[in-house]
Amino acid sequence: MADQSNTPPDAANRMWGGRFAKGPSAVMEEINASIDFDRKLYAEDIRGSIAHAEMLEKQGILTTRDRDAIVEGLETIRSEIEAGSFAFSRRLEDIHMNIESRLADLIGPAAGRLHTARSRNDQVAVDFRLWVKAELERTEAGLAALVEAFLARAEEHADTVMPGFTHLQAAQPVTFGHHCMAYVEMFARDRSRVRDCIARMDESPLGAAALAGTGFPVDRHMTATALGFREPTRNSIDSVSDRDFALEYLSTASICATHLSRLAEEIVIWSTPQFGFVRLSDSFSTGSSIMPQKKNPDAAELVRAKTGRINGCLVALLTILKGLPLAYSKDMQEDKEQVFDAAESLGLAVAAMTGMVADMRVEVDAMRRAAGAGYTTATDLADWLVREANLPFREAHHVTGVAVALADDRGCDLADLPLAELRKINPAITQAVYDVLTVDASVASRSSYGGTAPSEVRRQIAAWRERL
Amino acid sequence: MADQSNTPPDAANRMWGGRFAKGPSAVMEEINASIDFDRKLYAEDIRGSIAHAEMLEKQGILTTRDRDAIVEGLETIRSEIEAGSFAFSRRLEDIHMNIESRLADLIGPAAGRLHTARSRNDQVAVDFRLWVKAELERTEAGLAALVEAFLARAEEHADTVMPGFTHLQAAQPVTFGHHCMAYVEMFARDRSRVRDCIARMDESPLGAAALAGTGFPVDRHMTATALGFREPTRNSIDSVSDRDFALEYLSTASICATHLSRLAEEIVIWSTPQFGFVRLSDSFSTGSSIMPQKKNPDAAELVRAKTGRINGCLVALLTILKGLPLAYSKDMQEDKEQVFDAAESLGLAVAAMTGMVADMRVEVDAMRRAAGAGYTTATDLADWLVREANLPFREAHHVTGVAVALADDRGCDLADLPLAELRKINPAITQAVYDVLTVDASVASRSSYGGTAPSEVRRQIAAWRERL
Amino acid sequence: MADQSNTPPDAANRMWGGRFAKGPSAVMEEINASIDFDRKLYAEDIRGSIAHAEMLEKQGILTTRDRDAIVEGLETIRSEIEAGSFAFSRRLEDIHMNIESRLADLIGPAAGRLHTARSRNDQVAVDFRLWVKAELERTEAGLAALVEAFLARAEEHADTVMPGFTHLQAAQPVTFGHHCMAYVEMFARDRSRVRDCIARMDESPLGAAALAGTGFPVDRHMTATALGFREPTRNSIDSVSDRDFALEYLSTASICATHLSRLAEEIVIWSTPQFGFVRLSDSFSTGSSIMPQKKNPDAAELVRAKTGRINGCLVALLTILKGLPLAYSKDMQEDKEQVFDAAESLGLAVAAMTGMVADMRVEVDAMRRAAGAGYTTATDLADWLVREANLPFREAHHVTGVAVALADDRGCDLADLPLAELRKINPAITQAVYDVLTVDASVASRSSYGGTAPSEVRRQIAAWRERL
Amino acid sequence: MADQSNTPPDAANRMWGGRFAKGPSAVMEEINASIDFDRKLYAEDIRGSIAHAEMLEKQGILTTRDRDAIVEGLETIRSEIEAGSFAFSRRLEDIHMNIESRLADLIGPAAGRLHTARSRNDQVAVDFRLWVKAELERTEAGLAALVEAFLARAEEHADTVMPGFTHLQAAQPVTFGHHCMAYVEMFARDRSRVRDCIARMDESPLGAAALAGTGFPVDRHMTATALGFREPTRNSIDSVSDRDFALEYLSTASICATHLSRLAEEIVIWSTPQFGFVRLSDSFSTGSSIMPQKKNPDAAELVRAKTGRINGCLVALLTILKGLPLAYSKDMQEDKEQVFDAAESLGLAVAAMTGMVADMRVEVDAMRRAAGAGYTTATDLADWLVREANLPFREAHHVTGVAVALADDRGCDLADLPLAELRKINPAITQAVYDVLTVDASVASRSSYGGTAPSEVRRQIAAWRERL
Repeated sequence: MADQSNTPPDAANRMWGGRFAKGPSAVMEEINASIDFDRKLYAEDIRGSIAHAEMLEKQGILTTRDRDAIVEGLETIRSEIEAGSFAFSRRLEDIHMNIESRLADLIGPAAGRLHTARSRNDQVAVDFRLWVKAELERTEAGLAALVEAFLARAEEHADTVMPGFTHLQAAQPVTFGHHCMAYVEMFARDRSRVRDCIARMDESPLGAAALAGTGFPVDRHMTATALGFREPTRNSIDSVSDRDFALEYLSTASICATHLSRLAEEIVIWSTPQFGFVRLSDSFSTGSSIMPQKKNPDAAELVRAKTGRINGCLVALLTILKGLPLAYSKDMQEDKEQVFDAAESLGLAVAAMTGMVADMRVEVDAMRRAAGAGYTTATDLADWLVREANLPFREAHHVTGVAVALADDRGCDLADLPLAELRKINPAITQAVYDVLTVDASVASRSSYGGTAPSEVRRQIAAWRERL
Repeated sequence: MADQSNTPPDAANRMWGGRFAKGPSAVMEEINASIDFDRKLYAEDIRGSIAHAEMLEKQGILTTRDRDAIVEGLETIRSEIEAGSFAFSRRLEDIHMNIESRLADLIGPAAGRLHTARSRNDQVAVDFRLWVKAELERTEAGLAALVEAFLARAEEHADTVMPGFTHLQAAQPVTFGHHCMAYVEMFARDRSRVRDCIARMDESPLGAAALAGTGFPVDRHMTATALGFREPTRNSIDSVSDRDFALEYLSTASICATHLSRLAEEIVIWSTPQFGFVRLSDSFSTGSSIMPQKKNPDAAELVRAKTGRINGCLVALLTILKGLPLAYSKDMQEDKEQVFDAAESLGLAVAAMTGMVADMRVEVDAMRRAAGAGYTTATDLADWLVREANLPFREAHHVTGVAVALADDRGCDLADLPLAELRKINPAITQAVYDVLTVDASVASRSSYGGTAPSEVRRQIAAWRERL
Repeated sequence: MADQSNTPPDAANRMWGGRFAKGPSAVMEEINASIDFDRKLYAEDIRGSIAHAEMLEKQGILTTRDRDAIVEGLETIRSEIEAGSFAFSRRLEDIHMNIESRLADLIGPAAGRLHTARSRNDQVAVDFRLWVKAELERTEAGLAALVEAFLARAEEHADTVMPGFTHLQAAQPVTFGHHCMAYVEMFARDRSRVRDCIARMDESPLGAAALAGTGFPVDRHMTATALGFREPTRNSIDSVSDRDFALEYLSTASICATHLSRLAEEIVIWSTPQFGFVRLSDSFSTGSSIMPQKKNPDAAELVRAKTGRINGCLVALLTILKGLPLAYSKDMQEDKEQVFDAAESLGLAVAAMTGMVADMRVEVDAMRRAAGAGYTTATDLADWLVREANLPFREAHHVTGVAVALADDRGCDLADLPLAELRKINPAITQAVYDVLTVDASVASRSSYGGTAPSEVRRQIAAWRERL
Repeated sequence: MADQSNTPPDAANRMWGGRFAKGPSAVMEEINASIDFDRKLYAEDIRGSIAHAEMLEKQGILTTRDRDAIVEGLETIRSEIEAGSFAFSRRLEDIHMNIESRLADLIGPAAGRLHTARSRNDQVAVDFRLWVKAELERTEAGLAALVEAFLARAEEHADTVMPGFTHLQAAQPVTFGHHCMAYVEMFARDRSRVRDCIARMDESPLGAAALAGTGFPVDRHMTATALGFREPTRNSIDSVSDRDFALEYLSTASICATHLSRLAEEIVIWSTPQFGFVRLSDSFSTGSSIMPQKKNPDAAELVRAKTGRINGCLVALLTILKGLPLAYSKDMQEDKEQVFDAAESLGLAVAAMTGMVADMRVEVDAMRRAAGAGYTTATDLADWLVREANLPFREAHHVTGVAVALADDRGCDLADLPLAELRKINPAITQAVYDVLTVDASVASRSSYGGTAPSEVRRQIAAWRERL
């Protein structure tokens, strides 16, 4: 944005024309031009202009004839851009001037009337908002698909036991279905953040003009509705200086990317021969031409890396906006590339993860083996002693420690210790204890609300299916 | 958090007691202990434990007698901490173990029963959530006061003209009231983000235990209600690994801090003798003992700097959580200091700004002078030509340029040019044009929805007052 | 990088060919392919390959004939790329495979021999290092030009007085030359950081192969020398996993960008009519078609914004590398875009600033007027009283305060107060005091090493000219 | 820093005393006061003041008697602070005013003379630089110890084979000694960055006064030398506005922390039962009271998390300094806490890692087992075919693939295939091939400069020992 004045389009002269002794230097043109990235907004720009023209006509500010010429010209330009025949010019700086200039070529002076009661400041604000809103909707759809993928795997593996980890050390048995449902919670929260963000930014800045509003009898509610916004913004200065919607999109994306990175890390670790919990499909890994067992989890690693990239975009825009006086400063032109880059990264990462989750092979046996190793049901034994034998914790834990040491000595599992041996350690122990010493019994017992018991996991899956 | 097992309190031995050949080295104690900062959570920890004990009793897991002893013991500990007589121990690592150990001193073995169906993993999650929720509520109240301060100044200055800036250059006249209302929009959005964050995180993780839920017949809805949460969380793994509420708090704080930094920057610039738009009260500035005119806007500068600090906290936590496998890793212990630091910074910054806005002197004359300088109503002249004389933009702008050049030549304002001279430039100009050439006329004319006209500003103030 | 094995080029099949049941899905291709950005490294890749081929031949690993064919083929490819006739393929993922595949087309099976004792892991490391090293050298040259521009303006304005600011409030008079020299110090430090970075990263990873070194009798010193590196790296694992040179480039760029942002902020503020200290040339500002006085400092604002962007790149790469196990993970593919983006931003910003500094008009009168306003020589009076009248500070400051109050009352400067009046305040004051009360006297007096006195500023300019 | 004027100490009145109608409000005091953190600089502040007093005396600006009183008073204050008997006051804002005020109590008006030719701006700059320089020296020593720890383990395990990983998948055998030496390279680079930073910041800002230098005949070279700096800074404005040394410290710390995080991640993964490559000592892990096999790598996880914290500090200060006009703004008061926090985090992390590396148990057998699994010597076979049988790569890789498939079929290692079978695949294969098919042969063969061969690793260890 140079100045926000209602400047006439003029392909032959720069906007500020004769006022400058010499043209902007080459470095200025390079640092100043935004057409290389804001051309992405062409559809939004045209859509916004058509809504504006129709409102101007309805309000009697524009003749019907001019309106028709403008709309037709803009439709032609859209076709040209989509056909690849539009000649973008860096000298015309941005998408707005490129389109405006072409419109003047096509329909003559009427093109100039389109800018009545508008400036580049509210124009760019409306274009960018339209784009971000649509992207938020795409993100929501992507997250819905990812949640669906997890629900399906959770259902399939509601009974598949695996180790529940703390500190990447097996702590207690859980089910893979339950683990999947943890991700359902995370990505569903991401979705709800996306929806909140849409609701908050669903306002049209069009008609704020340069920064002060306009004296023309515009109908901002009409353009807001035409563009699919809930209502017009309430303050013209804020309308052109606000980039909260971009910041909120980026922070929502960063949190979602953090979730994706945790999942990616698990996939990378689970894919090692040492863990062997999952095997990625060929679609999401690369191999070695001579090491058949090697499956590099490239896609998961790239998803993990995108987190850094998205966080970087957030930091960039927060830093750019820090300390900017109202209303519009040129610094704000740097907002778009950060959002575009984060959006592309997030979109790809969500899609790749959805694919990976949907088609990775779950190695049920390896998971079960790992779930049972390392006396992961020791807590169940201690809990049993508290619950059934009414031992205080301290003693329950002591007894458990002795039992585990015995099993360790014999190289067997807790469930393999004979009852007689257990009763030597504490006579309160009965045959019933074996009901909690296997991994299946352990997970089945944890049926508290939100617990890992298959019955509870299935209940939560059903509840989520209803909620979606 | 070391291990999440239900370990008995024991002030004399470390939790994992005899299992370790030698005690943790000094550096380990220093890097590991969290008591220096998590003692801030003492009230939440006690509150959570009381709710847990009462639920255990109601479910028949704890005797009434034990419940009473526990509750009384916890109340005693609260008093001791608040009286400053509690001896915190670094060897006991964290607030949970400090309280637990003291409870054992006070009531004996019954203390151990408190940990039935709970672990440090869900305990720390519930404590931290309670704290963050309360902080979000404090933030909401602080923002409400700031919005009130702006509404009051907006009302007072609905007619005060000042320059509306783009690129820190005067572009068009606006009113100071209108400018204030831009900040009302910003801080109201911050408030709405805070509310969304509260709604999303209003769930109790208590009862998730270590990570898998529990086999005890707990009533998680009861503890959720007792602690003021809407409902219990739905997945036990997510319950102990989720720190979204902290990330969302921090990102909301960063966006709000960005707004504060923009306001701070304006105050710093406006306080210079060169601008002279506002004069800070003595409460929010420092002076020089020998330069009477010098008023350093220290508070505004510090508020501006806090933005960096808060962004740093956000980056820290995003980075910490990146790539962590589920469920709990010790890395997550680093979550609290970032939130505490950001909360203190944001709270202070909002309070300082509320004070500054409320009691700064608005230099009405200086604002008016600046509003009129530099032909800021040139756009109004051009718009008039379009609107009243039906000139196409290109010509309207050309005519305006010539008029401005003439005024510049004569060293006068546009409004000071005689009608005859204006008509020489374009005969369509009539006496009516003078109605738009003053700054007052200019602002009065911009009465579009959200525009800077005093009437419209007053309408928006009234609407906001109703909304709050 | 997929696998680092010495895979044969094969345009018709993917590298891991028949091992995968189905081809990578579309999303995988999109997230995986790097050719869209790493094609920027084509020249480095070809240069590295030629150095490698020549070494292999000298060591007897490659025949002279094969070496000649390879070198000729690579030169042909370079020509094709530079002529725009090279067909880049996304299916071939990256620049290395694109070139390798084309080489096979051109020279047949001999192409495969180029990969003896090399892998994509050390290949990409050497390519990227070559690029970063060259960029660091470009940065050094850009900073040298910027320092030169400041030295020239400093010389020109060694006597031009302006206010020295603290808190954006005038504190004491300085000279504009002195202010310029502060930036000479900053950008010279940036340059020295760039030089240190070059010295530290000036090592060739070529020959580290996949990660373990090679059994072929390679001469890594020979390729290091051929590529202009000081020496080969010392550890093959580190050679392929190290990206310190990228991180150090980015942090150096961030610090430099911070300096640029401070300068940009000053230019934005100084360009306001309120300050009026400088007037940007038409080359680095934009105007309004109808507001002649308005000169928007677009270039300065964009430079200020680039700081956010560069910081974002630094955060991105730090985050990406956090917690990556050795040696190579696919995450590292995300390193290049961050560096490319920061490099383009920094290069443009330095160039734009050099242009702005060189051709902005310094408004000597406005600076002098501001330097004298607000009793900025009050400190000089107090110092004089300490120095000449041996007053303790407390009293000196008290006396000064009374004098300033008197001047303020009369609406005059300190230097305009009659001696008689001053002596009434304190009889120790003599005619000599007037020698320190003017801004010129004030700056002339501060001739301590590094002080603002024109003589000292000139000495420092001369010293810098010698140093460069 | 309020104003930089030479204000007299006065415990009873705020510095700007009577000029302000009412005292700073409570929130202002809270946001403004820095004494809670800058008291850490007490020793540096006293040291700087003594150097200043001695220079003033030598230059005849201060009497010997006053100098003696000042030095003695400052020494008393140092003792009081170290004895814990000094009463810090928040009302006196910062460490400088606290000490100055106490000095006035102790020695009367002579205290005021200490501030001749100095201001708080250069005072805080010199204090902070002294602290950062000392911290850099501590960091260098800490890194030296870490490098030593790695050299010792590398020597011990120069022959210990382990898998070399890419994508966390075993790729080729390496030695653990070689892997340790990769970290030697990384931390040695960190050390060299620390040294560069010290060299660049080794300049004394003392004597720059408020921002313009001073008219008193000071000897800045004398104070620079007394404080251990190489020389005085060259520009007084830059002297008080420069915080490059803090930024460079933080970026150096971030890069070092990134290395630590990679090591921490490896330790976390290697400590799982699934990998079992290392076993942490009890000093650096925590256990479970009932799961004997569980060793939570808490220290490694905390080190990994500190990376986020340190990156956050870097982002904070970069953001704080962005766009600040020269010379001093109050924003800069926020510099110290970021540096203090990062320094404590980095110091602890380096110490914890040094301890962990030194005393972790290396599970040689587990490493060897993993090194041999998965045909990690397939590349060696292919290389042998190229080298010895002169096969082109494509064919060598094809042959290798067939051999691996055969071994996979038989469930044996490559080295277990009979020669006859191998010769059926390709008759060029001879008995000599077995020399490269074992992991020991593989690592021994990679003796290129920087390769993993034990002989080469030992050579690099010796070279590093000499270099240190």
